[in-house]
Amino acid sequence: MRLGERESLSKSKGMISVGVDIKVRYQETDQMSVVYHANYFTWFEVARIELLNRMDCPYRELEHEGYLLPVLDCEAKFLKPAHFDDQLIVSAALSGMPSARIKISYEVHRDDDLLCTGSTTHAFIDKTGKLTRPPQRFVSKVKLNT
Amino acid sequence: MRLGERESLSKSKGMISVGVDIKVRYQETDQMSVVYHANYFTWFEVARIELLNRMDCPYRELEHEGYLLPVLDCEAKFLKPAHFDDQLIVSAALSGMPSARIKISYEVHRDDDLLCTGSTTHAFIDKTGKLTRPPQRFVSKVKLNT
Amino acid sequence: MRLGERESLSKSKGMISVGVDIKVRYQETDQMSVVYHANYFTWFEVARIELLNRMDCPYRELEHEGYLLPVLDCEAKFLKPAHFDDQLIVSAALSGMPSARIKISYEVHRDDDLLCTGSTTHAFIDKTGKLTRPPQRFVSKVKLNT
Amino acid sequence: MRLGERESLSKSKGMISVGVDIKVRYQETDQMSVVYHANYFTWFEVARIELLNRMDCPYRELEHEGYLLPVLDCEAKFLKPAHFDDQLIVSAALSGMPSARIKISYEVHRDDDLLCTGSTTHAFIDKTGKLTRPPQRFVSKVKLNT
Repeated sequence: MRLGERESLSKSKGMISVGVDIKVRYQETDQMSVVYHANYFTWFEVARIELLNRMDCPYRELEHEGYLLPVLDCEAKFLKPAHFDDQLIVSAALSGMPSARIKISYEVHRDDDLLCTGSTTHAFIDKTGKLTRPPQRFVSKVKLNT
Repeated sequence: MRLGERESLSKSKGMISVGVDIKVRYQETDQMSVVYHANYFTWFEVARIELLNRMDCPYRELEHEGYLLPVLDCEAKFLKPAHFDDQLIVSAALSGMPSARIKISYEVHRDDDLLCTGSTTHAFIDKTGKLTRPPQRFVSKVKLNT
Repeated sequence: MRLGERESLSKSKGMISVGVDIKVRYQETDQMSVVYHANYFTWFEVARIELLNRMDCPYRELEHEGYLLPVLDCEAKFLKPAHFDDQLIVSAALSGMPSARIKISYEVHRDDDLLCTGSTTHAFIDKTGKLTRPPQRFVSKVKLNT
Repeated sequence: MRLGERESLSKSKGMISVGVDIKVRYQETDQMSVVYHANYFTWFEVARIELLNRMDCPYRELEHEGYLLPVLDCEAKFLKPAHFDDQLIVSAALSGMPSARIKISYEVHRDDDLLCTGSTTHAFIDKTGKLTRPPQRFVSKVKLNT
């Protein structure tokens, strides 16, 4: 992750953050010759998955253990457009103490340009759809890192 | 459009609103067996395009005339999941006086169930990317309908 | 379904065929200002699902009964581009006697213009991934219609 | 690129080939818990773009110079499913002398497993949509490498 956005996403202390490289695919553009806005949420997902990896709670394993992390809400602000073949860094940060609900913040940078900010909120639920506590492993990791 | 969501999206007077039928595609599901959250923004687009049609300002024509309506921000809240083959109604409503910026609100219903609410904000810009006033036709239509 | 493509997809006797209306979404375009090629396969899916509906074998029910119909191969030829907001008819036709494998052919028309032809091959498998016979209901329906 | 698929895609002499790393996104799965088939064509695109990069003909530059490379046809065979979070290698190879038409072949591997093979055919056209010769640079590069 580049220095720039690590700083911007970790102004508040005690955040766990991560950045991933995204190369814009032609499929992700639309006829305005920019990236279609909904695709940023897929990039957020890529960064979120990496964030969980860094916390030793890979999402693939969480699902095997019976946890699901559906999206409760999501939002994004678009400051500058991204274009085909752009090399971007998408960073994700988790803040605060985990409850059944976690909020993750995102930023998309192209070099020094901040293109997009956003966030998603997720609940830990079990396979029956009931709200559940996050796995102990997850809670410990958050405490350790914040 | 069903009565239910027309009412809910037009509680405030003076709204222009519309509803479109959406059948959930298999491609739109993910391995949680629900619709992937980012796809709701594509459905919002379908309803938004129909809203502009009803205002006699088809987006296709707006682009031909040199206007673009990029998304400045967007958000959605997910109340209940949508599933493959569900028959949904996605409604869109435009409120207030147009400036260079317009805000559109959305609701997704399956029968009487409200699955999702959301909104997008758009700017009218010209081909050079500069903010511009909406076409007179658009402004008149809003005045006429609100 | 319009007359044109019904004829073209049912030249061979004994075909079960169906057509669905597709309005091109902005999300489906790319910066070449045409529909991105991979999206045609999603439209094929929409027509295929409707084909199964007309055969009284809705895919949703097939999955509940333990059948899956994964895609073994697929192909498409692109004759003319589709554009944003185009009103298209996507037709699907099933030919021949069903085995564990079925082949479905597709055509995409805009008025009298044939934009695309394609096909997909599917296997009936059970939840363990093993090849299986189609449900008796499906076989009977094919015999009845061909 | 891993040795395995480089060999398989360059059995015929004189091929220009390349491999890219793809991590499967959750968004790319469907409720069968495998990657939706149409998404392989987007991965093919990622490999194709990298192939053009290696030939010093980045697609971004080709478009700036007035060339477009629309897809004339495409096909894929699916041998084994890909799953969420899988680390894949998607390889692309260009064979033979370029004309106005080029054919690119693809393979998708997960470790030693071949999951998918496919191909796309493209035409060089100019902005008016007319068939045109590939840029001299492209032709030379092919001659040099084959």
